[in-house]
Amino acid sequence: MIKKEIQVKADLLGSNKAVAATIREKLSQRGILTLNLISSPGAGKTSLLESLASRIRPEHEMAVIEGDIETERDAERIRAQGIPAWQIKTGGACHLEAKMIGKLFPEIPSELDFLFIENVGNLVCPASFDLGEHIRCVLLSSPEGDDKPKKYPKVFTTSDCLLITKADLVPLLPFDIERAKKEALEINPALQTFVISSLTGSGLDEFVEFLKISLQNLRQKYA
Amino acid sequence: MIKKEIQVKADLLGSNKAVAATIREKLSQRGILTLNLISSPGAGKTSLLESLASRIRPEHEMAVIEGDIETERDAERIRAQGIPAWQIKTGGACHLEAKMIGKLFPEIPSELDFLFIENVGNLVCPASFDLGEHIRCVLLSSPEGDDKPKKYPKVFTTSDCLLITKADLVPLLPFDIERAKKEALEINPALQTFVISSLTGSGLDEFVEFLKISLQNLRQKYA
Repeated sequence: MIKKEIQVKADLLGSNKAVAATIREKLSQRGILTLNLISSPGAGKTSLLESLASRIRPEHEMAVIEGDIETERDAERIRAQGIPAWQIKTGGACHLEAKMIGKLFPEIPSELDFLFIENVGNLVCPASFDLGEHIRCVLLSSPEGDDKPKKYPKVFTTSDCLLITKADLVPLLPFDIERAKKEALEINPALQTFVISSLTGSGLDEFVEFLKISLQNLRQKYA
Repeated sequence: MIKKEIQVKADLLGSNKAVAATIREKLSQRGILTLNLISSPGAGKTSLLESLASRIRPEHEMAVIEGDIETERDAERIRAQGIPAWQIKTGGACHLEAKMIGKLFPEIPSELDFLFIENVGNLVCPASFDLGEHIRCVLLSSPEGDDKPKKYPKVFTTSDCLLITKADLVPLLPFDIERAKKEALEINPALQTFVISSLTGSGLDEFVEFLKISLQNLRQKYA
């Protein structure tokens, strides 16, 4: 990269970080646990949110911010579950930025428990942009292969939890769950890992339990 | 984007385009048909190259340039097939650029027929960077879902061919091949489409035939 590019990138990341910190502080004060979901296209982010709805809503309120380059499709899928959803169309940009979340902030109801931000499908660029979330989750779907953590390390090192998705397909694929976990934990030993299938529901109760405990912890800290 | 960012991006794309044009001209004069393979992580780019090897090599010579953020894994898989392969590690960058190909140029043997460039796994950013290829192929794997062309349009509008991969998994998935093709052709009616499985070999003969005809056409044009 030439010097001018490096400077522009540093400025961009610096200003993003400042906006993200303000958003996180506001969300913490309101007691809204916020997650940033990052993965390749089609790893199952929207399907996860659809299948979390029935498990979260008896007790808690959730809402979703959808990031996509084009189309309202993902927000429509979420709204069909009766969940408030906002669609951000980036119009070409490969990731969400904190200022895009900041613009939506006035619309976010304050009685919320969980706010999920579904990033643009991209295992690379979103890793560099803090959105003000409390928990960053990277999703790795079994058809992508168990060799991805070391090939795309940044998103694994900056995440708090790893969801191995499409577990129902594992018996049909050359995918070794233990190898994938081991690779990811080698580069980030603090990762909480879950193996889930949004189709069969396996692993989802454990993940929801983790969300509820994280919510309690956030509220105790900011009480 | 602020004005300075837009200007830096325009400069970067402009200089990339010029380098790419020079590379393409040199490759054309040598009669080396060059392909740029773009897809999400784990859509099957390396597996495709492995399974093309035995179908191309009885008659023709091929070589591969591998682009990854980290690791030499993909190049090692290709070399294990006895095929020359160079690994470009981008060290964080989300796409290959023409100057990276240009640097390798002196090492590329001139008796080659096909040069495959496997881009970084990313359905977004590589679409903006011409690498000097003759044919750009976007791979969409069936587990990613048939709704991706309109959500990630740029790579589909800038590609010459679409390979729907992992066709063997289609019977197990909510993936409609005709819907995926229709979506892609609506945004780019000129796309040549192939439905393949590197595991079973289905569709590969048809794709190899397309490659051989494209090679003939290139050589006739530059004879």
